[in-house]
Amino acid sequence: MIEIAARKEAAASRTARLDAVFAALADPTRRAIIERLSRGEARVTEVAEPFHMSLNAVSKHIRVLEASGVVERHRKGRDHILSINARSLDEVDGWIQRTRSYCEGRLDAMERLLRELKKERKPRPKDRKHGSR
Amino acid sequence: MIEIAARKEAAASRTARLDAVFAALADPTRRAIIERLSRGEARVTEVAEPFHMSLNAVSKHIRVLEASGVVERHRKGRDHILSINARSLDEVDGWIQRTRSYCEGRLDAMERLLRELKKERKPRPKDRKHGSR
Repeated sequence: MIEIAARKEAAASRTARLDAVFAALADPTRRAIIERLSRGEARVTEVAEPFHMSLNAVSKHIRVLEASGVVERHRKGRDHILSINARSLDEVDGWIQRTRSYCEGRLDAMERLLRELKKERKPRPKDRKHGSR
Repeated sequence: MIEIAARKEAAASRTARLDAVFAALADPTRRAIIERLSRGEARVTEVAEPFHMSLNAVSKHIRVLEASGVVERHRKGRDHILSINARSLDEVDGWIQRTRSYCEGRLDAMERLLRELKKERKPRPKDRKHGSR
């Protein structure tokens, strides 16, 4: 029973993490921050620089990203250094891949079916020679 | 100038689509609906069945998914049939892949550097024989 409870808890926290990461990605400023950090860690002020908004507004976005686990912060002397946590993206990517592979599997099956139906409608020899590639 | 404006507009609508799809995915019920539809199209009532909520509540989630473009609806007689639009997931997947590949490229470069540093610290013959493992 304890094991089931532990598994349920793990699933619930995975669900909560997916919720938080997808919500964090649903904003163009936050996606731009992630794109910046994917090229290398940076100070908060460096991250904020290209945006036409106050440092305070950018900081709010950074806090959302930190809460979701996509962005991590550590201190180097007086500086706050931000970096990306690629593992947090692995989880959302895994979800999308699984969903897509289901879809693609079905599309492949449909394609096979169409090909078989095409074969059954045997083309005349003339058609076959010039085939439609 | 018209071309630049058109390109800007396309980028803006791509951004808006990414916003909408990520926001749509930030909810466990909506992700469960997508998972269900990735296995095949289904009627609204079939989709709603496994959820412990009113048909109205599920319909609201479905409308969010339709607005984001992830889910499509067509009519078959009196039934409303829902299906998934895999292309809408391709775009968010593409974004995540690009961001991750940047990260991974950097991690690979770091790994190479570490391996080179290890080689420079040439091991004694005895260490070499028994290796680490």
